Amino acid sequence: MTRGHDHDGVRASVFVAPGEPLQLQSFPRPRLASGETLVKTTCCTLCGSDLHTYLGDRQGPKPAVLGHETIGTIVAFGPGYAPIDGKGGPLEIGDRVSWSVAASCGECFFCRHDLPQKCELLFKYGHEPCCGMYPLSGGMAEYCHLKRGTAIFRVPETIPDFVASSANCATATVAAAMRSAGGCRGKAVVIQGAGLLGLTAAAMASVQGAKHILVADVDPQRVSVASRFGADAAVDVATGPDQLADALYAATDNRGADIVFEMSGSADAIRQGLPLLRIGGCNVFVGAVKPISTVQLDPEQLVRRMWTLRGVHNYAPIDLADAIDFLAASWDQFPFVEMVGGEFPLERADEAFQHMIATRAVRVAVRPGGQLNSC
Amino acid sequence: MTRGHDHDGVRASVFVAPGEPLQLQSFPRPRLASGETLVKTTCCTLCGSDLHTYLGDRQGPKPAVLGHETIGTIVAFGPGYAPIDGKGGPLEIGDRVSWSVAASCGECFFCRHDLPQKCELLFKYGHEPCCGMYPLSGGMAEYCHLKRGTAIFRVPETIPDFVASSANCATATVAAAMRSAGGCRGKAVVIQGAGLLGLTAAAMASVQGAKHILVADVDPQRVSVASRFGADAAVDVATGPDQLADALYAATDNRGADIVFEMSGSADAIRQGLPLLRIGGCNVFVGAVKPISTVQLDPEQLVRRMWTLRGVHNYAPIDLADAIDFLAASWDQFPFVEMVGGEFPLERADEAFQHMIATRAVRVAVRPGGQLNSC
Repeated sequence: MTRGHDHDGVRASVFVAPGEPLQLQSFPRPRLASGETLVKTTCCTLCGSDLHTYLGDRQGPKPAVLGHETIGTIVAFGPGYAPIDGKGGPLEIGDRVSWSVAASCGECFFCRHDLPQKCELLFKYGHEPCCGMYPLSGGMAEYCHLKRGTAIFRVPETIPDFVASSANCATATVAAAMRSAGGCRGKAVVIQGAGLLGLTAAAMASVQGAKHILVADVDPQRVSVASRFGADAAVDVATGPDQLADALYAATDNRGADIVFEMSGSADAIRQGLPLLRIGGCNVFVGAVKPISTVQLDPEQLVRRMWTLRGVHNYAPIDLADAIDFLAASWDQFPFVEMVGGEFPLERADEAFQHMIATRAVRVAVRPGGQLNSC
Repeated sequence: MTRGHDHDGVRASVFVAPGEPLQLQSFPRPRLASGETLVKTTCCTLCGSDLHTYLGDRQGPKPAVLGHETIGTIVAFGPGYAPIDGKGGPLEIGDRVSWSVAASCGECFFCRHDLPQKCELLFKYGHEPCCGMYPLSGGMAEYCHLKRGTAIFRVPETIPDFVASSANCATATVAAAMRSAGGCRGKAVVIQGAGLLGLTAAAMASVQGAKHILVADVDPQRVSVASRFGADAAVDVATGPDQLADALYAATDNRGADIVFEMSGSADAIRQGLPLLRIGGCNVFVGAVKPISTVQLDPEQLVRRMWTLRGVHNYAPIDLADAIDFLAASWDQFPFVEMVGGEFPLERADEAFQHMIATRAVRVAVRPGGQLNSC
């Protein structure tokens, strides 16, 4: 790895340690092996987990090129490789693409049991050390080096960069949660957390034909935007915790929620959400990806009320395909673009994080190789 | 209701209150409405929940005719009724039948959402007061009066009474648990509790082609019989709690269980079972049908390990169909008959309960209208 700048070098903004500014460094242009792809990164939006890592709230390897909500343009393929889109069509140089946040081996127990996102050799973009074999695996760099086993999907030009960037993280994770819950058509749905996951879940539930969508958060700014993402009602549970149950029971003949999506990562939200489930209801847990306090579960209630509780982490390629289809058909029905509260060039990536902290924006964009002021 | 004996009366052994002997009483022969069926009860096996009610460990209406694991012969249909077997064929007088433990209305929210077992007007055989419209709804009586909305299935003569009686409770509940878990083919399965539910689960998992079946109980007598029901290993968790994990990890490359079936109703078992689940594993909860202490759930683990937790209570008619098919094909591969530790005529039904308590037999049979000494 070359740490200095050189003419052929690829610039990246490197996370060194929590509390320290990102450092602009130069890396050699990757040499591609068979089955690999090089992408010029157009846009990367900062995800909540990037912020957790940046702030030290979440353990991750370092130094690292962070950023995994990315979109880019294919510039090269490894030798002897007939590249295929995740849907089965050919891929070509110049294609605008999104790729699965994780590369999987395709051969281990989990890959053979419909859990490629839990592959024993999992490689996760934006979560790997930049001193390893694949230093350029994060979105905070001009290029991204895609390993064999990465599902790559073409992305329609109609979806703006600011929206398409999140497809391979927030949108695909929500698609996985929807699949885990069996879809929302005709259902009464509670969504806890109105970050990009929760807002996307509201939008996707709405497009799927949910009967009633209720969003809850403790941040009045986020609550206020939920109705524009398809929520029939949105509740600030910091000021009115009982309103959530009241609104739900009024909408469901006192029956409760068909589905509760936990997308806040708060133990209090879990304690509040579980009793809202109707008999036979499904609680999908997505938000709790860092340690929180345990919650009490009453086994008799779980049995008699025939609840299903499911954890969703990462997603499978099929979910990214669903996510892109959803955005292609519906992105302009919802204010996704407005959720990106600013954009910064690569050399000012640290400012992007600081801006996200200061404004509590849902997302902030970094443009490693793209034009600013376009979305 | 006629409490005294009369010549046309139907004899029943009535549960009056915990701690009091069952009382032999006579009821008028039921007059059938359209859609109703009268069955002469051949055999009724006592279920654990009958025993809980008898002992006062479980609240239920009283006075009541207990017993729901029953089999009998159709003797009459209500007027203008073309009776249909749960599989779609005609039913006739003289047919040997089993029926769903619950009758459902077919029209309420739960009936329309694949949960007939949670019908808003649910009528549960052997769990209703005998002072109501349907006093003869339990197995401890010569006849059983089947309401409209009861799924009735013909039972092959090849399945002995002692085995067929449990079809509509233990076997069908296990079939529901299997359906909830997505089946056991190729899977490593832990079964907690070696009562009739757990032993039947081992047998059904074995017939389905489970890769490894591990049964756990705190009763050495029950543990010892598990291998004859298809268990690859059985562990007495009272004396060797770590052996369960050791045996599981040895059988699964340290990966853990694909499925844990909780069929003991013990909070300690739940605390022990949950950590045994592999990433992506499913824990099906069946046993906890009376209040037990709560258990701690770690939301981050639920999310990152992508667990599914499901409660199963009662069952749907499709599960009873599966149960009868399973028994018809496989009953003689397992010592189901031996699980019935004695049989008593109706007038000695109280002795049947006392015998079950004294011997800890898995089941004891009562013969309201059948020959003794046949199984």
